[in-house]
Order: sequence, then C-alpha cells, then structure tokens
Amino acid sequence: MEALEAILSRRVVRAFSNKPVQLSDLVKIIDAGRHAMSARNLQPWHFIIVRDVATIRKLGELCSTGRFVADAPCAIVVLKDKTNVRWADIDCAQAVQNMANAAWALGLGTCWVGNFDGQKIAEILGVSDNWAVFTVLPFGYPSPNQPPSSQRLRPRSQTVDLERFGQPLASV
Amino acid sequence: MEALEAILSRRVVRAFSNKPVQLSDLVKIIDAGRHAMSARNLQPWHFIIVRDVATIRKLGELCSTGRFVADAPCAIVVLKDKTNVRWADIDCAQAVQNMANAAWALGLGTCWVGNFDGQKIAEILGVSDNWAVFTVLPFGYPSPNQPPSSQRLRPRSQTVDLERFGQPLASV
Repeated sequence: MEALEAILSRRVVRAFSNKPVQLSDLVKIIDAGRHAMSARNLQPWHFIIVRDVATIRKLGELCSTGRFVADAPCAIVVLKDKTNVRWADIDCAQAVQNMANAAWALGLGTCWVGNFDGQKIAEILGVSDNWAVFTVLPFGYPSPNQPPSSQRLRPRSQTVDLERFGQPLASV
Repeated sequence: MEALEAILSRRVVRAFSNKPVQLSDLVKIIDAGRHAMSARNLQPWHFIIVRDVATIRKLGELCSTGRFVADAPCAIVVLKDKTNVRWADIDCAQAVQNMANAAWALGLGTCWVGNFDGQKIAEILGVSDNWAVFTVLPFGYPSPNQPPSSQRLRPRSQTVDLERFGQPLASV
C-alpha cells in the first residue's frame, strides 16, 4: 500500500476477526515503531508482544477504555522510559502512529487505549522499574461484522492557515 | 512509495536544496497530519504554512535547536490546543510523524525542532491565545551536498520482548 494512501485510509479498529496474526507481521509493526523520530535519537521505548490468551484477557480487564483488547488475537504493550521525562510521551506517540500505519498497510488494525491500570499491567508482565506502560495496542484483522468506521475530520479550512494565523489557505 | 518503505527509509533532513516546494505537496503533508490518531478524535492541532522568506528567517532565529529552519524553502508551524492538556502533545506528535512520513514519500525531508521561543513565534504569526507552538517543521528537498544521514537504532534484541518483560524475542 502506498504511504499516503495508508495514512489517509487508516481507520480505528476495535473489533477483530479470529484470523491469527503472523508473528513476523508484529515484528514489522514494531520495526515501524522503532523507526519513529525521537528527541536526540534516544528511542525511549520498549515493546512486549503478547499472544498468550490468558494474558490478553487480563490486559482487557485492566484497560478501562479498551475492554475490546480482551478479544484481540494479540497485543503489543508499549513501554516508555521513565527517566526520559521531557520527551518520552511524544516519542512513544510517534512510534505508535508508525505502528498503526504499518499495521494498516499489512491489512491489520488497532486502536489507542488511553486509560488503563499501568501499575497492574507492569506487574503482570514483570516490567522493571525504569519503564512505565505507555499504551496497550490490540492488533488483528478487522472483524467482517464491524467494519472500521471513519473519523470525522475538522475541515481543512479550519485547521490550515497560510503565512499567518487566521488567514486560511485558499483551496489548492 | 510503499508505506513500510517510507517509514523504514525516512531520514532526518536539516539541509535543503533550493528547489521550491509545491504548495499542493505541503497540503498533502498537512492532510497526513490531520489524519493522525487523536484522543476522542479531538484533533487538537492547527497548521500554518510559512513560505515568506523574511518570516522563515525569523523562525530560524527563534529556533535554538533549529537554526537550519532559516535556510529551508518553507516551514509548517504546528500549533497545539492549549485547552487539551492531557492529550495535545501526544496527538500533535502523531500528526508530526505522519507529516514526516508523507513528506519523505513525496521526496521531501524535515527535522523536528524541539527548542524554540514559542511566545515570540506566536506573536510574529498572530497566533490566538488558545494555541501554543508545538513545533516548527522546515520542509524541502534534501541538499545534494549533505545527504540525509541514518540514525543508529537500538537493536531489536534490546527493545522487543515476547509475552513478558526481559524475555527477548528470538529472531523471527
């Protein structure tokens, strides 16, 4: 899939088919994350691939805005370096965007989970004290019963200016 | 360019050729940013395309870690919604990653600028009080004299675990 097409066509996926996800595809997704920009190239991220069904279920229970994680065939837990206070959130967010785009190009989908019990998830996965859970990303092929929906975008005319704030770009 | 190829091959570009950048390409880059994920789909971003040479020069002066902005043929100033305290940084970072990838797929390059005088930049561009400068992104074709360098990545063996933290993924 073309890069621009992947970026523009990507949808949020919260319902997954039973089709298993190849480990090699998860590695490609993580490689996309590892190639994100990071401040001073510090790469303040770490990834745990979870495919064990019991662990996936527990993750779903611990994601208050991501119960659907429990029904995904796999997940990637993204950890951020706690010692990188200034940039870790921003850098990890960029890694996650790359991961979502790469997954989409491979026919897979995901959804950001923003609220979760990071302490308990870290305990379950044996995460060391230097790292905090940044997000939990479920991955899978979109369920044929619940096709991914598109998000409504604020119009370009309200989000893009030319040369000065409040001077909207004429249509190009 | 294929999506995965764009993500994996993207390099940081700080030195630009004189070749002008089409406004329509800048709009494509911003559209890529507008299609990033955002918490509750709030899209807490705004973009100002700057092509005026005098303004570009001033931006370069105000970017302490991005003097090279002054020599770019154009820049996009990314603003974040100040009222979206919890997620604006993360969401804008995802927009920026999409913009960098889209630019690369179009043959263009950019570089994150992390330190700048946001107050002064906002004054120059007439930015309203609801918005803060998130970053300044120069854009241009890479200079043939200074080809983009690759960043050294932490090896996959140190950044990816399977099922539990500290349990490295065997090579796939």
